[in-house]
Amino acid sequence: MKNVSAEILRNHLRAGLDPRSIAIIGASENSNKVGGRPIKFLQEFGFKGKIYPINPARQEIQGIKSWNAIEDIDDPIDVAIVALAGEQAFQAIDRCAARGVKLAVVMTGGLTEADPIHGKQLERDMVARAHQYGMRIVGPNSQGLANFGTGAIASFSTMFVEIQPMDGPVAVVSQSGAMSVVPYGILRRRGIGIRHAHATGNDADVTVCELASLVAEDTDIKLLLLYLEGLPDPHQLARAAKEAHARNLPIIAVKGGRTSIGQAAAASHTGALATEDRVVDVFFEKHGILRARDMKEMLSGAELYLKGWKPQGKRIVIMSTSGASCVMASDTASENNLLLSEFTQDTQPLLRAALPSIANAINPIDITGAILSDSGIFGRTLQALQQDEGIDALLTSIPVSGAGYDVQLFAQEASNWSTTTGKPFIFASPQPEANQYFSDLGIPTFAFDTEAIQAFSRFRMHHELMRVHAKGNKVDSFQTMPAPLLVQDLRMLDEYESMKVIASAGVDVVKAYLCRSEEEAKSAFRDIRQSVVMKGCSEKIAHKSELGIVQLNIRDENHLSKAWKKIKDVFDVHQIEFQGVLMAPMVKGRRELMIGAHHDALFGPVVVIGDGGKYIEAMPDTQLMLPPFTENDVLIALGRLRIAPLLEGLRGEPPMDVSAFIKNVMTVQKLIQQGNIASLDINPILIDDRGQGVCAVDAVVFKPN
Amino acid sequence: MKNVSAEILRNHLRAGLDPRSIAIIGASENSNKVGGRPIKFLQEFGFKGKIYPINPARQEIQGIKSWNAIEDIDDPIDVAIVALAGEQAFQAIDRCAARGVKLAVVMTGGLTEADPIHGKQLERDMVARAHQYGMRIVGPNSQGLANFGTGAIASFSTMFVEIQPMDGPVAVVSQSGAMSVVPYGILRRRGIGIRHAHATGNDADVTVCELASLVAEDTDIKLLLLYLEGLPDPHQLARAAKEAHARNLPIIAVKGGRTSIGQAAAASHTGALATEDRVVDVFFEKHGILRARDMKEMLSGAELYLKGWKPQGKRIVIMSTSGASCVMASDTASENNLLLSEFTQDTQPLLRAALPSIANAINPIDITGAILSDSGIFGRTLQALQQDEGIDALLTSIPVSGAGYDVQLFAQEASNWSTTTGKPFIFASPQPEANQYFSDLGIPTFAFDTEAIQAFSRFRMHHELMRVHAKGNKVDSFQTMPAPLLVQDLRMLDEYESMKVIASAGVDVVKAYLCRSEEEAKSAFRDIRQSVVMKGCSEKIAHKSELGIVQLNIRDENHLSKAWKKIKDVFDVHQIEFQGVLMAPMVKGRRELMIGAHHDALFGPVVVIGDGGKYIEAMPDTQLMLPPFTENDVLIALGRLRIAPLLEGLRGEPPMDVSAFIKNVMTVQKLIQQGNIASLDINPILIDDRGQGVCAVDAVVFKPN
Repeated sequence: MKNVSAEILRNHLRAGLDPRSIAIIGASENSNKVGGRPIKFLQEFGFKGKIYPINPARQEIQGIKSWNAIEDIDDPIDVAIVALAGEQAFQAIDRCAARGVKLAVVMTGGLTEADPIHGKQLERDMVARAHQYGMRIVGPNSQGLANFGTGAIASFSTMFVEIQPMDGPVAVVSQSGAMSVVPYGILRRRGIGIRHAHATGNDADVTVCELASLVAEDTDIKLLLLYLEGLPDPHQLARAAKEAHARNLPIIAVKGGRTSIGQAAAASHTGALATEDRVVDVFFEKHGILRARDMKEMLSGAELYLKGWKPQGKRIVIMSTSGASCVMASDTASENNLLLSEFTQDTQPLLRAALPSIANAINPIDITGAILSDSGIFGRTLQALQQDEGIDALLTSIPVSGAGYDVQLFAQEASNWSTTTGKPFIFASPQPEANQYFSDLGIPTFAFDTEAIQAFSRFRMHHELMRVHAKGNKVDSFQTMPAPLLVQDLRMLDEYESMKVIASAGVDVVKAYLCRSEEEAKSAFRDIRQSVVMKGCSEKIAHKSELGIVQLNIRDENHLSKAWKKIKDVFDVHQIEFQGVLMAPMVKGRRELMIGAHHDALFGPVVVIGDGGKYIEAMPDTQLMLPPFTENDVLIALGRLRIAPLLEGLRGEPPMDVSAFIKNVMTVQKLIQQGNIASLDINPILIDDRGQGVCAVDAVVFKPN
Repeated sequence: MKNVSAEILRNHLRAGLDPRSIAIIGASENSNKVGGRPIKFLQEFGFKGKIYPINPARQEIQGIKSWNAIEDIDDPIDVAIVALAGEQAFQAIDRCAARGVKLAVVMTGGLTEADPIHGKQLERDMVARAHQYGMRIVGPNSQGLANFGTGAIASFSTMFVEIQPMDGPVAVVSQSGAMSVVPYGILRRRGIGIRHAHATGNDADVTVCELASLVAEDTDIKLLLLYLEGLPDPHQLARAAKEAHARNLPIIAVKGGRTSIGQAAAASHTGALATEDRVVDVFFEKHGILRARDMKEMLSGAELYLKGWKPQGKRIVIMSTSGASCVMASDTASENNLLLSEFTQDTQPLLRAALPSIANAINPIDITGAILSDSGIFGRTLQALQQDEGIDALLTSIPVSGAGYDVQLFAQEASNWSTTTGKPFIFASPQPEANQYFSDLGIPTFAFDTEAIQAFSRFRMHHELMRVHAKGNKVDSFQTMPAPLLVQDLRMLDEYESMKVIASAGVDVVKAYLCRSEEEAKSAFRDIRQSVVMKGCSEKIAHKSELGIVQLNIRDENHLSKAWKKIKDVFDVHQIEFQGVLMAPMVKGRRELMIGAHHDALFGPVVVIGDGGKYIEAMPDTQLMLPPFTENDVLIALGRLRIAPLLEGLRGEPPMDVSAFIKNVMTVQKLIQQGNIASLDINPILIDDRGQGVCAVDAVVFKPN
């Protein structure tokens, strides 16, 4: 039974999402108990497969024959819900596996989340035993899986009691039980149907990411929402993203633990590992996943996604009955990377004819309160905007309406406009009655125009991310993702050794001499034939300048002798083992940059580029990149630096040698991917005029011991 | 009748807010017309004063005797609503003034907003004529004033038809009609009463700020909301802030036109002048006014204000039935400058005893779903937190509840906790039913915990701003505000002249020689006795380094001659009038900083400090300050710079001479306030080690011609 293939394990999970039969171990007559709720839901929400309550104390549960033990059932069991506590649960899980169950949904809690070390080991053992039989486990500590497409509700969520389900185009996969159903609750109230609402709990076997990659196979889904705390298997998420984007399915994710305070809370909640949050940002962006800050942001624009719109550009028209609305919406558009469409020559006269005389034919369009006395203005204005190819979307707000306003007519005309043009039309009003007319016709509505613009901006950016991802997605980057290199025991190389390592990899470095004696130093100086820098060398010292063991601009041998003595004295005073003095020519450069690389515990190799020098901790200006990346990716990252304008050449200065820098970054990428270096930090690497190259003058490399 | 005092004008406006009689010129029988709505509202909403419809065509309007003309009425008229169009309106306004009306509310539109130049002049003339009689004007283009405390509704807003008014503790003053009633609509739906909802329209006479300063006198008001596009009279807003804060009345303002796109829209909407938005930020902060980005943010935490809470600190407890909620709320708290309370020794055992065994007694508190089986947990946990003085506020979220959850009990216990401790308690749930239990007991509720935390953070910060403002509020800064110096015709001084101006004001400058000939330059060089910098001097050149007329590190006379020739050549080639070469010693310094000053069209003198050098436009790192400011204010502004850590001394370096820099900033403040300089830009001013002072080495001064 051993060595069940990954393929079979995956197939068993797939089967578990669309089961023909579900057993409930620890079944309860009380439909408000953990072991009772799923039976109620399965019966109420149309599950067509077989239901097997298991509870030796009863003959019948909620009107269905009850069984003594899973072994008594002859038919195949796809899913078993384990609603028992403690030791009983383990036994039940083992028996399910032996019985050929494909997927166990374990609701039992109190393992990793209560006892991170011992609990985690128990979970690992449990999963290992299950996998011997090919059984997958969701949980423990899971609220369960819910598929409203099939009625297979292996979940005990109270939310499904409170709000009636409706099958639809949205899927939610979440570690947290609450966050699997909060989107359900909110979207259902907005009239949106939800098919999947899955909670994975402790992710001992099936993780959010793996489940997401299977849910992404459901071709009826138009929006996939994820809530994550840990991200133990980013390659699964990369795989989900690849499969999803191949058919234009967008993924929005909330990853809790953005801050150290939040990460501490996440560690205590689901035992999630802390990782630098910027790496998470970069990973999501790289894979075309939109990262939302919280549930509110995640759900704010859901309707936009379900319309099937593919926003082409960022040029919008803002139209309102209120000039103030026009002002605030314009501010928000401008701050959210949107542009106001400029109307074509053809549009302008049409618009002037459509609008009331007091209104200007400019964007934003203040159609004024005149629509109260002439309801036709609204539709005529829309018609004037119908042919303009400079418009990518239209946002309309009517902050005040009611008696005398023909909002129903406006909604119909908006709907016609959107249908005819195929472009997004979005409506905003703080009055729910006004919004209702529009949402009845399928137009996304918001309480505030500014909120609408923020949502549209995210939506558009998300499609842009997906397009970029799809383009660069020829390689199965999830299969080439290197495993994280985790080493506890690191050794810092001294500067000379560090420079040798990066030089032999191909980084452009200054030619340096390691001199053990003053005589050697003098000989090196004669060799170099220009001003030199002298640096005391020791693998024990990370920050040299504080100690005064860096001597610059040494121009003659007399000067050299003094500098030698100064450096030597520092080593003596601090009793640091003296490994020599590094002698190198003073290098000319326009700016000090930096290149770093390390292995993230979850995401593997990370390369960092940025402004360099002494103050990078105090005034950081860096960008992260995840291999594999291209030269063009480096260029984009450089463009996001605060110092980007300097690199291009400012105020009469020539541009700097960006392509030489990029070449060196690519070299570092290769080096860190080889896996025999734990981290490196090249700082500074001097950049000069275009054509003059770059030159690394200091570096620290850490190796596994 | 001329020269009516400012005091009387103000009193007439005050009387207009609480009128004993209101005339409606252009009164209509149709209660949905501009001239009909106010009559309907006055009768429906309990106005106790007299109502005089004026319409020569009718005997009676909406059941009230109608008058031919305002002159026919014998009794005094406090307020006249002008609901006529065009020329008729002007005549009516003049007649009202002559008749002794104290305040005309002019709804007529089509002036400044339609024709910025001609329309504005008509408005100015109209106001001047009215002021001769002491009459004030709200509008034109105003939706009107509404006071639900007295029922004096001189407004035609549709919103009052749609949503029944209720007198209460909130006041709204807005230029925009829509934005005067959007807060009304949203807050009324949330059960909050509104007393004032005033729209000032074109602000030809009465501005939002002046009206706000009078509304602030209403001691029943607990929250004052403003919507502004222009800010023609910041001193009135300063006055409103002073009066409001004297009795702890908070002001939240939305100022539209944050971006250039939004400012263009605002210019077209209300003719608002553009001003640098950062100045607006600084002004609001200085006067303790919270600036909200939009209506949504403005209204999001209104309930917090109405509770009368005075948040003391930033230490909060987060408590949730969902671990994920704990994580996201902690992230949000951390990002919004809040701290998680650390429980005292006394609290910890109490908390452990109160919580279910699987929960940890740490903050955030994950009380888990155990409250479903033991409703007492909620109250016991709150009780454990009752005595802890390390807690400034408590946020609880229950993302999922319903069948089996005793939310009503939880709400009662939360209310008890808040009453007993006097501390803010805030509740969040995406389920409106759950929130209802809490809001019924007066507890502020939110749909999302992250939203609740953002709102609380703003609320707390706002009280901090108000405290700081109240402390520094001994001087009537609104009375000492200098009038803006607006000059179209400016003259740039050359570097030598500019340096002379700032030196004589007391700024520490490098000693420089203006040399007309090479011989003069050599003589200066001998005088200076160290390496010098040579700079070609002309009032025609703003950016010297691009032209190559800055020569550094001149060490000998030979070198000097070559540099002289180079500079002279540039002047010849570009045919720029040669005014000499500036010779100055090379000055040592640790960092190049800058000090600038100018006159803002609305706010008067502005001082800018920041990182200096060539790249300040490309990589700005500056802070703005509005006089009058203290040395401590400069220190705070310096602390907000990106380069702040450098000034303190980093990585073994000594601190820089911040106090010398501050002294120079204070000098610049005095200089710009004198009013005979249009702007100045000192860049760079070099800062050295503490005790070594600062030294300005370049400056440009603009003077009025």
